[in-house]
Amino acid sequence: MSENTKNEIESIGEFGLIDELTREFKLTNDSSVKGIGDDCAVISSEGEHCKLLSADMLVEGVHFNLSYMPLKSLGFKAVSVNVSDVYAMNGKPEQITVSLGVSSKFPVEALKELYAGIKAACEFYSVDLIGGDTTSSYSGLIVSISVLGVADKTNISFRSGAKENDLLIVSGDLGSSYLGLQILEREKGVFNANPNIQPKLDGYDELIKRQLQPIARKDVISMFEEMSFKPTSMIDISDGLASEIMHLAKSSECSFSIYSDKLPIAEKSILTSEELGLDPFVCALNGGEDYELLFTADQKDFEKFKNNPNFSIIGFATDKSNGNLLIDKNDSAVTLNAQGWRHF
Amino acid sequence: MSENTKNEIESIGEFGLIDELTREFKLTNDSSVKGIGDDCAVISSEGEHCKLLSADMLVEGVHFNLSYMPLKSLGFKAVSVNVSDVYAMNGKPEQITVSLGVSSKFPVEALKELYAGIKAACEFYSVDLIGGDTTSSYSGLIVSISVLGVADKTNISFRSGAKENDLLIVSGDLGSSYLGLQILEREKGVFNANPNIQPKLDGYDELIKRQLQPIARKDVISMFEEMSFKPTSMIDISDGLASEIMHLAKSSECSFSIYSDKLPIAEKSILTSEELGLDPFVCALNGGEDYELLFTADQKDFEKFKNNPNFSIIGFATDKSNGNLLIDKNDSAVTLNAQGWRHF
Repeated sequence: MSENTKNEIESIGEFGLIDELTREFKLTNDSSVKGIGDDCAVISSEGEHCKLLSADMLVEGVHFNLSYMPLKSLGFKAVSVNVSDVYAMNGKPEQITVSLGVSSKFPVEALKELYAGIKAACEFYSVDLIGGDTTSSYSGLIVSISVLGVADKTNISFRSGAKENDLLIVSGDLGSSYLGLQILEREKGVFNANPNIQPKLDGYDELIKRQLQPIARKDVISMFEEMSFKPTSMIDISDGLASEIMHLAKSSECSFSIYSDKLPIAEKSILTSEELGLDPFVCALNGGEDYELLFTADQKDFEKFKNNPNFSIIGFATDKSNGNLLIDKNDSAVTLNAQGWRHF
Repeated sequence: MSENTKNEIESIGEFGLIDELTREFKLTNDSSVKGIGDDCAVISSEGEHCKLLSADMLVEGVHFNLSYMPLKSLGFKAVSVNVSDVYAMNGKPEQITVSLGVSSKFPVEALKELYAGIKAACEFYSVDLIGGDTTSSYSGLIVSISVLGVADKTNISFRSGAKENDLLIVSGDLGSSYLGLQILEREKGVFNANPNIQPKLDGYDELIKRQLQPIARKDVISMFEEMSFKPTSMIDISDGLASEIMHLAKSSECSFSIYSDKLPIAEKSILTSEELGLDPFVCALNGGEDYELLFTADQKDFEKFKNNPNFSIIGFATDKSNGNLLIDKNDSAVTLNAQGWRHF
């Protein structure tokens, strides 16, 4: 293939790239129950439980900007992002490894701040830091975490289990993290233009916290246990609701219809999106980094979620041939597009 | 603390840094059997087996130089480095995750080469690629791998089990990888000075292969099984023999005396070190990246290793108060210093 026709990564995107690179890998060990293609891999062990394994890497300048991301928040967030993948399998995270790439000129005190955030997250999520690697980097800070979790073999939720007529449900609210990021970017722009102007962050605390220090929904997994509920499929929202819906649809070989007026958007998010000239529905659909749980439930479980303030029923699964549809309050349907957060 | 007195990482080194950052982390989950401080963490599962987890990150410009490291070799090496940590616990690697940071301008064809190397290693070591993350990087290639292995609960070898009079044994030979790197660096220097001069790599193939595509010693673990042998302690040689001896000594609360004339050094390594004006013993002691296994054996197992061409008995464990000593052929002893490969 000549130089000119070589594909560059940005032309095929992250998911296309992963498909392309891993297509020919086969699972050969009996203990490898589920490989690439869900929030975690599933590894069997003797007895009633399975182990869950996932890995995520955060890179300076791509996933975080140290000009407004405090290192302690970064440490907490890096753990949240990883344990969220275990909750998305209906599991419980237990161990993490942290591999760090960092300039040798980085002050040890700054790394201690990062580890204070990791420690706070370990305590919050009841996970143990059990290993990792620390190495030099010429090029900004890199935080690469792997997480090991545990789940009852009969209780794991995959992306692939949704069936026609299942309810599509999301925890919490959507778009806040994205709007928090927009506020931080706006104030950074103002500061860069005139360093004498103090950033105006008052009143946006909740949105900013959702961006800088998101909380993965371990409480939702406990709620499921209390209500003896198992999702038929589940995923966490990292790239944006629309993108995750399309993952569930693809894995479950179905489609989804969702109602725009059912999307949970906090009042502050609506006000802030108006202030910034953004469409709150677009922020909710495509903002990303919500770390809420998106799942499907059998119709028989409707009562469990009907008036439950922790959850919103936003749509339902349909036959695959329907396509993924967004239905507005006038009942007109448009095809759902994912414009999720692309970092390539 | 004022700006001037802040510690920089390079002043305390990698191991000091890890100690400093992780000192206050406690293990809280029953399943966390062993955390930081060995080649792998140990996680219990039901039944007779434990899971082993380790993570290593390779950073461009620090761990590899793409001007002489073919991407396929890099992929193979990144897996070798990780599975070597599982063998060092007397375990069997079964799964890996690969997290990749890469410029969006990187050609997909080049990444396919990297994954061809990862795939070759997965097949060679019988491990499954089960997940990971692919993200953009502004700053060179980053390959962060985690490996999950399995071991019989009663058969794990920790760094901490050596006792006085145990034999200190090493597999294979030492210093080859370091000398391979020196040859690559020499030829790169010649090429940079005059790009018309072709690199002279003929005759150094074995040394260069040891550097570019090291093989972790899965065969040694099989040998142990066949001879019904369990090391009293074990570690793999990544940073250099002297550094690893000091790790075993510290974890086992003992010291070691080693004989310089017992160090296994291949004839080609001796010739090459002479050619380069290097001391072959220094290369063997401090070169690093050998990925051989260093372990201790009870005296009763002496016969198993006495004339075994796969192993060299290089010394023995002594009381801690003796200190780690290097004894030369004239029986004069000097204190062993680790000048292992420092990447900070």
